[in-house]
Amino acid sequence: MASEKPLVAVTCTAPVNIAVIKYWGKRDEELILPINSSLSVTLHQDQLKTTTTAVISKDFTEDRIWLNGREEDIGQPRIQACLREIRRLARKRRSDEEEDPPPLSLSYKVHIASVNNFPTAAGLASSAAGYACLAYSLAQVYGVESDLSEVARRGSGSACRSLYGGFVEWQMGEQADGKDSVARQVAPESHWPELRVLILVVSAEKKLTGSTVGMQTSVETSPLLKFRAEAVVPARMAEMIRHIKERNFQGFGQLTMKDSNQFHATCLDTFPPISYLSDISRRVIHLVHRFNAHHGQTKVAYTFDAGPNAVIFTLDDTVAEFVAAVRHSFPPGSNGDKFLKGLPVRPAPLSEELKAALGVEPTPSGIRYIIVTQVGPGPQILDHPHAHLLGPDGLPKPMP
Amino acid sequence: MASEKPLVAVTCTAPVNIAVIKYWGKRDEELILPINSSLSVTLHQDQLKTTTTAVISKDFTEDRIWLNGREEDIGQPRIQACLREIRRLARKRRSDEEEDPPPLSLSYKVHIASVNNFPTAAGLASSAAGYACLAYSLAQVYGVESDLSEVARRGSGSACRSLYGGFVEWQMGEQADGKDSVARQVAPESHWPELRVLILVVSAEKKLTGSTVGMQTSVETSPLLKFRAEAVVPARMAEMIRHIKERNFQGFGQLTMKDSNQFHATCLDTFPPISYLSDISRRVIHLVHRFNAHHGQTKVAYTFDAGPNAVIFTLDDTVAEFVAAVRHSFPPGSNGDKFLKGLPVRPAPLSEELKAALGVEPTPSGIRYIIVTQVGPGPQILDHPHAHLLGPDGLPKPMP
Repeated sequence: MASEKPLVAVTCTAPVNIAVIKYWGKRDEELILPINSSLSVTLHQDQLKTTTTAVISKDFTEDRIWLNGREEDIGQPRIQACLREIRRLARKRRSDEEEDPPPLSLSYKVHIASVNNFPTAAGLASSAAGYACLAYSLAQVYGVESDLSEVARRGSGSACRSLYGGFVEWQMGEQADGKDSVARQVAPESHWPELRVLILVVSAEKKLTGSTVGMQTSVETSPLLKFRAEAVVPARMAEMIRHIKERNFQGFGQLTMKDSNQFHATCLDTFPPISYLSDISRRVIHLVHRFNAHHGQTKVAYTFDAGPNAVIFTLDDTVAEFVAAVRHSFPPGSNGDKFLKGLPVRPAPLSEELKAALGVEPTPSGIRYIIVTQVGPGPQILDHPHAHLLGPDGLPKPMP
Repeated sequence: MASEKPLVAVTCTAPVNIAVIKYWGKRDEELILPINSSLSVTLHQDQLKTTTTAVISKDFTEDRIWLNGREEDIGQPRIQACLREIRRLARKRRSDEEEDPPPLSLSYKVHIASVNNFPTAAGLASSAAGYACLAYSLAQVYGVESDLSEVARRGSGSACRSLYGGFVEWQMGEQADGKDSVARQVAPESHWPELRVLILVVSAEKKLTGSTVGMQTSVETSPLLKFRAEAVVPARMAEMIRHIKERNFQGFGQLTMKDSNQFHATCLDTFPPISYLSDISRRVIHLVHRFNAHHGQTKVAYTFDAGPNAVIFTLDDTVAEFVAAVRHSFPPGSNGDKFLKGLPVRPAPLSEELKAALGVEPTPSGIRYIIVTQVGPGPQILDHPHAHLLGPDGLPKPMP
């Protein structure tokens, strides 16, 4: 794709992913190698995505990057690691093909612009989508076609899982150089069409403990984390893959909740302890268990990443009733009309029996809004030139 | 003490204890045998105690019990287990002494009255003090002089630790019949005179998940709890005993916090998860770590039982400054003058540096009040007849 054109521009999008078997802790901080395998669901980009434009040109004098419209320091170690890695892969490909000398474009500087259509640092794994999109875009402009797990992983571990759609496992690998620590699709996005994902946004506050520092402290201080990684996760990975392949929501949902709880348990076992769940998070947990108990089966499951927002998995036939239960327990504030975003949800009545079963004091405005989405595909290339975030001069276009 | 008097009345008091290595989970529900050893500090009865009067008489036609002035069902299985056990020990003693037939008093029915000087079910381990006091009082009236661990334990596991003053370990034991699952004093109450205990009462709400049901669910569902009991606690017991013997507050405080956190981590790893910590509890945890970070050493330590109240350990020279920090972070409500109960605390200024270091938004009325206390002795016998809660007729005296 690259070769010797004076300017190459590519714009890609990449999805957010939500882990159902959690990644927490690195065995190698530099290479970003995890202490256990993890498994995630890729969310649909109609609702949540990062868009990144990468432009290379012989006229650029330096690498530059703009995030959400603001120029940032390209020297950040993780961005540098991605750039170094993609250029290494590009050189390797050329030398493998015995094309000598490598094309000039390999020496071109790159301009990068990236935007999210959702607030960053709100516990929505924005860095995963961001680095997956960066890796994917850079691969396009520099003409790299090999597996991009390592490139994305060097930006943010879980970013490698955003390189694929559907259900994705990140195999921890065994090698010291991390070559076998790669993402792999377990099932495509079309595999389980009834599955729905609801993001209950509790708060857009910046979290107190970032996940990079958090997991490092956990690895150093939590005896339970070490045990979890070695003795609990391997069996859970196999079990989760089986539930997904069989589209067994009971099994999938219960294991998802257990693994979320265990991840947060290891955070609490960290010293000093880390708490990502808030009282509202705990009320959501309680609501889900009451909802399921009322139905006598696991119809809804929660998972929480390094923040208070709940991510809910359920099937399409349960969405309307569960949203009604959330509205009942967390009456929306003044934004009542904007409470639901994403896929449409038909209004549903809440039975008196269910209301009684929920049995919680309503917490007004506890949930700010709900994003309704589903399983989606991996990164996409946008073909229209108007999609580019950078103009022909390599500088950001005015934001619309 | 008993023999053939027509009526024997004894009144005893027993202390609350706070575990620094936590007990959570039974290996035998019937005998109340724990899955791991635990270690506690006995609190002084000047601030917190249960008072129990036991009266036996040949004229009583049935066993009866009054708790905090209200008659309760004597048929409760745990009360029955204590009664059965104490009468068995009394018979055993008599037959060991080859006094045959046993004294008539052994067949006397008992009237029991018990009061706490603190609210029950507020996470203050009222059942431990209550059953220790029951066991101790019954032992007096029925003339039992052997170790009462088993009697108290059958009421509430941690009650056996309230049978001794100072620092007490409950050895889990190995035997199936629980004969070696006993409490033992590690160091007397005079051992560490500088140690102070502050109870930060967050809420008197009844807790959502009682500890009996909670620990049973944890044993059944938490992989982390099993690992903790087998692989973490044994070394921590030895380490904690060493810190106490050496009066090493740094070590004692850090391990106390770590073990509290790990206990709550296993609650979160339970399915459905159990949460005893509230947002206020977490703010206290944060405050303690900031306070210690400011001082560059562990001057204060927290521990939480099955409820949101924080129990703080510190040394006498730090109490005033820490209380000032709590007042700053949790400005008292309208009860400002009753915010401090128990041992006197001199007012202390809070340096601007410390205020800045705490760096938290104040949470008005987050803490309802503080009980300031210290390490104390085990159960006591009250000699004055006016201390009896039951009159000569065996019925409760009018409450003062």
